[in-house]
Amino acid sequence: MVSVAGVNEWREGELNPQDDYLVAEEPLEIRVGDVPISVTMRTPGHDLELAAGFLFTEGLITGRTQIASIRNEPDARQNGANRVRVDLAPDVVFDSEALRRNFYTTSSCGVCGKASIDAVRARCITPITSRSAVDPELLCRLPDQLRAAQQLFSRTGALHAAGLFSFAGELLVLREDVGRHNAVDKVIGWALAHDLVPLSNSLLLVSGRGGFEIVQKALLAGVPVLASVSAPTDLAVNLAREFGMTLIGFLRGRRFVIYSGVGRIASGTLDVIE
Amino acid sequence: MVSVAGVNEWREGELNPQDDYLVAEEPLEIRVGDVPISVTMRTPGHDLELAAGFLFTEGLITGRTQIASIRNEPDARQNGANRVRVDLAPDVVFDSEALRRNFYTTSSCGVCGKASIDAVRARCITPITSRSAVDPELLCRLPDQLRAAQQLFSRTGALHAAGLFSFAGELLVLREDVGRHNAVDKVIGWALAHDLVPLSNSLLLVSGRGGFEIVQKALLAGVPVLASVSAPTDLAVNLAREFGMTLIGFLRGRRFVIYSGVGRIASGTLDVIE
Repeated sequence: MVSVAGVNEWREGELNPQDDYLVAEEPLEIRVGDVPISVTMRTPGHDLELAAGFLFTEGLITGRTQIASIRNEPDARQNGANRVRVDLAPDVVFDSEALRRNFYTTSSCGVCGKASIDAVRARCITPITSRSAVDPELLCRLPDQLRAAQQLFSRTGALHAAGLFSFAGELLVLREDVGRHNAVDKVIGWALAHDLVPLSNSLLLVSGRGGFEIVQKALLAGVPVLASVSAPTDLAVNLAREFGMTLIGFLRGRRFVIYSGVGRIASGTLDVIE
Repeated sequence: MVSVAGVNEWREGELNPQDDYLVAEEPLEIRVGDVPISVTMRTPGHDLELAAGFLFTEGLITGRTQIASIRNEPDARQNGANRVRVDLAPDVVFDSEALRRNFYTTSSCGVCGKASIDAVRARCITPITSRSAVDPELLCRLPDQLRAAQQLFSRTGALHAAGLFSFAGELLVLREDVGRHNAVDKVIGWALAHDLVPLSNSLLLVSGRGGFEIVQKALLAGVPVLASVSAPTDLAVNLAREFGMTLIGFLRGRRFVIYSGVGRIASGTLDVIE
């Protein structure tokens, strides 16, 4: 996941050659049968999870049983590691032309926010009904847990992370990527492979910002609580509110902001305001 | 660019309702004539710059003179603010089917990194030959300048920024967006509108990471020095080296890392190592 490059460091007036770790970034092509669906820049690794998670969170498949097989496939340039081919079960209807239209109008979130939310609703997302609640003190400890787990994997500090936690604070899976969306897709692809979707009793923590597309992906996987260390956008908040997801931002130290679904934030001493 | 929402803040065991500023995120559709080209999630504002910059940095136009007109256009849902229509000069050949193929294979950066770099080369990018050099002490002051300028515009802390500076350290333009790519496209669209492309004597500073696509966009605009406060990826470094761009990362305090083109880092007391 990292390579070493000779670089120069400038520090307080001195220039010194040194070796630096660079995080890998390569394109991954996802095909359904022979049809190219997407090319995404990603950090190599967990590519089958990424492909499965992407197809699911974009609403192209509704569950793992729709996947008959999924594998790396060499392309014409023999880049076997940069293409994943997914074959769907025989009874799954997959209209690639409709897909193209669908991608244009919905994957990129439609032509206005309202249309986007309509498009998400049209994908048969059901509102989050999980009554599970998370202890705020436990929530505050999760960013440190995520960072500690990242240090086991990453040397560059250049990667986004997505971590799936139980409501007891156990880290179930951590995935990293140069793209935040990809890290989330890898986590959800992992959950699909382990038959854990919908993730009714889990909490998803992402580095960086909680934007519209991250909320959309988490909603499709049924995640009741999505937390990030930075700010969400207005469209992300509107989407979370419409579908009953708890959306947390600015999770830093012993402080966070609840943008939606405050009822799931509960501890022994806390009055719940909804 | 911001809206206000009622949220709850949790701080050290206490839950308090309060108002929070949310950054706006809405889709923008870019059309060339009647042909939809792209839908991107962006922060509203400077949409014409964004559209012009996007068409240029994706290699779909080669300069501002190819644009006959550019304007906001209402769509069927009367979202006049979320669609930009660009009409090209009569002599510009624009094959929308070729565009679709091109987008599939190159905008998303091809099926392998090598192919991506080939595709970028095929867009007639010439290597950066600018001999301008930047004073490292001046470089170290730019992130603070960028942040100070951001505080004039932004209240949420949720926006990526791209700032274009002269080699004398003057901030020429600052643009912000929920998407880092969009902030860069807005800056380059501004430069196009002011006939400043190629930007042979400017330095581009971006918040966040310098990934492949940011380097590609800066290269198309002829930017000789690209700096970010975080780490670049391996593919970004390879691309910058191939085309002679100076790529700076981890620009924080009085320290930075030069990944490519160290010859442009010069001060009176510094020996240049290439």
